[in-house]
Amino acid sequence: MNEFDFIKRLRGQAQSRRHSTRLITGIGDDGCVISESSGCDLIVTTDLLTENVDFLRGVTPARLLGHKALAVSLSDIAAMGGRPFWSLLSIGMLRDQWNSNFKDEFYEGFFELADHFGVALAGGDVSETTVGIVIDSIVLGEVTAGVAIKRSGARPGDQIYVTGNLGGAAAGLKLLELGFTVRSPTVTEGSDADTDASASPDQAKPRSDGDAIQGLLLRQLRPQPRVGWGIVLGERQLASAMIDLSDGLSSDLNHLCQESKVGATIDAAAIPLDDDVKHLCGRRALDPLALALHGGEDFELLFTVNRDNVSRLPKAVDGVSISRIGEVSDDSGAVRIREKNREWELQPEGFEHFRE
Amino acid sequence: MNEFDFIKRLRGQAQSRRHSTRLITGIGDDGCVISESSGCDLIVTTDLLTENVDFLRGVTPARLLGHKALAVSLSDIAAMGGRPFWSLLSIGMLRDQWNSNFKDEFYEGFFELADHFGVALAGGDVSETTVGIVIDSIVLGEVTAGVAIKRSGARPGDQIYVTGNLGGAAAGLKLLELGFTVRSPTVTEGSDADTDASASPDQAKPRSDGDAIQGLLLRQLRPQPRVGWGIVLGERQLASAMIDLSDGLSSDLNHLCQESKVGATIDAAAIPLDDDVKHLCGRRALDPLALALHGGEDFELLFTVNRDNVSRLPKAVDGVSISRIGEVSDDSGAVRIREKNREWELQPEGFEHFRE
Repeated sequence: MNEFDFIKRLRGQAQSRRHSTRLITGIGDDGCVISESSGCDLIVTTDLLTENVDFLRGVTPARLLGHKALAVSLSDIAAMGGRPFWSLLSIGMLRDQWNSNFKDEFYEGFFELADHFGVALAGGDVSETTVGIVIDSIVLGEVTAGVAIKRSGARPGDQIYVTGNLGGAAAGLKLLELGFTVRSPTVTEGSDADTDASASPDQAKPRSDGDAIQGLLLRQLRPQPRVGWGIVLGERQLASAMIDLSDGLSSDLNHLCQESKVGATIDAAAIPLDDDVKHLCGRRALDPLALALHGGEDFELLFTVNRDNVSRLPKAVDGVSISRIGEVSDDSGAVRIREKNREWELQPEGFEHFRE
Repeated sequence: MNEFDFIKRLRGQAQSRRHSTRLITGIGDDGCVISESSGCDLIVTTDLLTENVDFLRGVTPARLLGHKALAVSLSDIAAMGGRPFWSLLSIGMLRDQWNSNFKDEFYEGFFELADHFGVALAGGDVSETTVGIVIDSIVLGEVTAGVAIKRSGARPGDQIYVTGNLGGAAAGLKLLELGFTVRSPTVTEGSDADTDASASPDQAKPRSDGDAIQGLLLRQLRPQPRVGWGIVLGERQLASAMIDLSDGLSSDLNHLCQESKVGATIDAAAIPLDDDVKHLCGRRALDPLALALHGGEDFELLFTVNRDNVSRLPKAVDGVSISRIGEVSDDSGAVRIREKNREWELQPEGFEHFRE
């Protein structure tokens, strides 16, 4: 049994129970949605990060790990169309890490991102472990009652969009595995838009290999959650379905289609590829399209829009633009990709725990 | 820097930030409290459990681990005077555990307790680890606006109470460490009151050593959160301050006194000792009073009550009685214990991560 089959079964077990007080959306979406009966719905999400699986300790500066721990959960709130307000963080570490600067730098990175989005650290847990770093990140947000954007709302004919560009985080992971490391000065540059390669894809300044490598490492180590886009799409009720790209486009689009009981056809040429990946491709054996399709952790938003709402979409939010990559079909469960003259079924090949 | 000093500093860092939308209580209590602006406050709590530190894998049946993961967070909601409604659970495990019955039995234990209290599993995360079992348990509950019971509300003259009896969980841990194991038939008995030794302390039937040992092992492995008492004390606004006994009476009373800027004097003879500990003491080198004072994980509630409210306290809730163990003093920070003719300062000697 793989991760997704297990979650499906768990969801069935949870749903079979009678007690689900004001629970609008439970297991099976980016976050759960609880009715607050005051014009607002509460969204709660949690993400577990452990060493070797979600991050490589030796090559991940503590400050960036603090950033990423919060970023992945902010991305989930965004994917529900919500506005994040509160965070709880559970962290376990070895005594050696406790006695080093690790915990201070970790929280510096965490607070930097939290402050950027006005999110309060409301609670958490601190624990000693015998096995290394373990983090569980919890974020709570809100959305106007009834407008949380689920994975299940896509309808045939809806247009499919992604924010930013894809493939950079997966390329960054490959570079880390090849031994490249992030330059330490960059670590302290904060989360300014100008250090976020994806925020200004059309920048004209020539980019060296070194800059491109650093840009990709940061795409992996310091993901930028699309909080602004999440809020806009939620408040203006523009998206019919949404998911964040954590596992990879091929897998996440598949999740969305399964939940919506629809299919999709996407256009390979329309997929926005990361400039740094394009810059390095060939030289570093990076295949931009494969990384964009199956590489995970870009933490961009993938969403569907009814044709009538397309004209109401903003061009950009917080400097991040969007790309139309395809259309929802009524061919339930089938995700197809068109490249030049051929078209084939896109298998979900993104990240998966306990792959069989 | 020890665990509590670090949390204090983190709390200062969190409070120094301007953005704390409707956050009534943040870091430094059993759960955080968020105003829902609909007559209700939301309580959120999270607990991280890792192998070797929070549980011993080899001697902890998966079903009981699922129970305990939820129980410890339900206890935190109870300690705030709240009613639990929703849970999210993050769990990481090795591939070997994934491929065994572990995950199924774990969730059986989890759902059994969740069903008992009508708590819905609303979300979570499932992850592969390379380091063993990691669990983060999150519970959300509610309380009438403004009546969440903080650690900080105790006033001189308030009477100090505990639910149930103390020392059993710590004795159970010692027995596990000595090699005793829980009998498997008992594992499936569920959370009926009659298997909860603490629920009927005055039971007359003679208890064998074997029964006492099993009772203590279950006190450690299958803690019973005092959900009913939490709801009653919260709804009727009977307690001025409350905390759950997770680290141990000496430490947790110290936390409560520090938050309330008061002292306390407790009466050793009034501390309700676990019957099974008393039964075995002498024979197994268990010191009942030391276990009750410094042993953790009883998950009983420790609370203070204004003298005017004492007569309104129910005798028992869900079959669990309470004991008056002392009185709040104005001697800020000093917790004293009286035993026969002598009185001494009670140092916090309960569990602490990263003890210096």
